[in-house]
Amino acid sequence: MAEEIKKGLVLLDFWVSPFGQRCRIALAEKGLPYEYSEQELLGTKSELLLRSNPIHKKIPVLIHDGRPVNESLVILNYLEEAFPDAPPLLPADPYARAQARFWAAYSDKVYEVGSRLWKTKGEAQSQARAEMLQVLGNLDGELGEKPFFAGEKFGFVDLALVPFMPWLTPSFERYGGFSVAEVAPRLAAWADRCMERESVAKTLYPGEKVDEFITLLKKKYGIE
Amino acid sequence: MAEEIKKGLVLLDFWVSPFGQRCRIALAEKGLPYEYSEQELLGTKSELLLRSNPIHKKIPVLIHDGRPVNESLVILNYLEEAFPDAPPLLPADPYARAQARFWAAYSDKVYEVGSRLWKTKGEAQSQARAEMLQVLGNLDGELGEKPFFAGEKFGFVDLALVPFMPWLTPSFERYGGFSVAEVAPRLAAWADRCMERESVAKTLYPGEKVDEFITLLKKKYGIE
Repeated sequence: MAEEIKKGLVLLDFWVSPFGQRCRIALAEKGLPYEYSEQELLGTKSELLLRSNPIHKKIPVLIHDGRPVNESLVILNYLEEAFPDAPPLLPADPYARAQARFWAAYSDKVYEVGSRLWKTKGEAQSQARAEMLQVLGNLDGELGEKPFFAGEKFGFVDLALVPFMPWLTPSFERYGGFSVAEVAPRLAAWADRCMERESVAKTLYPGEKVDEFITLLKKKYGIE
Repeated sequence: MAEEIKKGLVLLDFWVSPFGQRCRIALAEKGLPYEYSEQELLGTKSELLLRSNPIHKKIPVLIHDGRPVNESLVILNYLEEAFPDAPPLLPADPYARAQARFWAAYSDKVYEVGSRLWKTKGEAQSQARAEMLQVLGNLDGELGEKPFFAGEKFGFVDLALVPFMPWLTPSFERYGGFSVAEVAPRLAAWADRCMERESVAKTLYPGEKVDEFITLLKKKYGIE
């Protein structure tokens, strides 16, 4: 192929994607420059996206010197290992790293269960509500009285979880009929703390923007 | 607490669990001695399991010097990092590691889609069948003509995926009406190659045993 390999980092992403936002926050925290490439998500997918992620055909994709890495948590681990001189997001201790990986993966549940909150009604929605309260309770319990999940420092779990907060408030809260501040008050305070970080504040959008986007998705999927 | 902390490695597991088998194969490949603790899965869960994995209440759990690590892929990464002198299962190159993590996570789909093959009927089952053919095709394509997923050496993706093979043949195959040897011939040959390894041969059960177990599960769940 005559195509030239692009050097450096390119992130194929979509503005409101919490999975993409994880990567953006990580790149900002590590001080790694990259080219941001906004993708069409509700229309035709770009040839570059389809070629870079033929399996899932989804953003985010991190392309490094022409080679694509897919799946947000895989990307985060890759950034740790491919740029060892940049500030690490995972702790150094193997046990603490395992705990961080566990909770980062667990945080995906907020999105998965939350999607059922706005996609379903009746019994299925009640079930999703009960699950969400459990998930938020577990996260609140794990955080406890610590400022951040790993302790004093903003890190891996924080950046994996925080992009879901503007999905929770006000959208998931309204569809589920609960309040994060009430059911997981320490988590709510933690989210405010995270938002004080430049990497987070510059990446996330207000909950109202996410809410508008969910309304758009509902219309697209024909959900009343 | 007066309780003494048990030194060394203990694996809470269940004989036929492919997720537990991943950990058993990894421990064997690394030559790490451990105590195997078979758990009651269909009856009352042990106090030790509930205390060690309060979030998911699931095996496998690896307890190292009294501290539990949950989720099979987290456990595999932990073994890599906590025992740096044992033979590594992940490749050394960061990009190859990311690819390995991507495909190991992807292999979970065989189990997830396969469960829908035997739990559902009609439209849902047809959908699961179509998905399974896609998943097997993707895995077969990624393997290609290589002996193992990372190349010449048995490693991370191989051990993450191979425990699902006795679930595929004959069970998932029969429920889905397909043959792995036909739809993914390179994958079928790879499975035979994996079974020649002592770590795998000693850990996995014949597909007929898995099939009996699925029949038991169906009865338990009241699935016709």
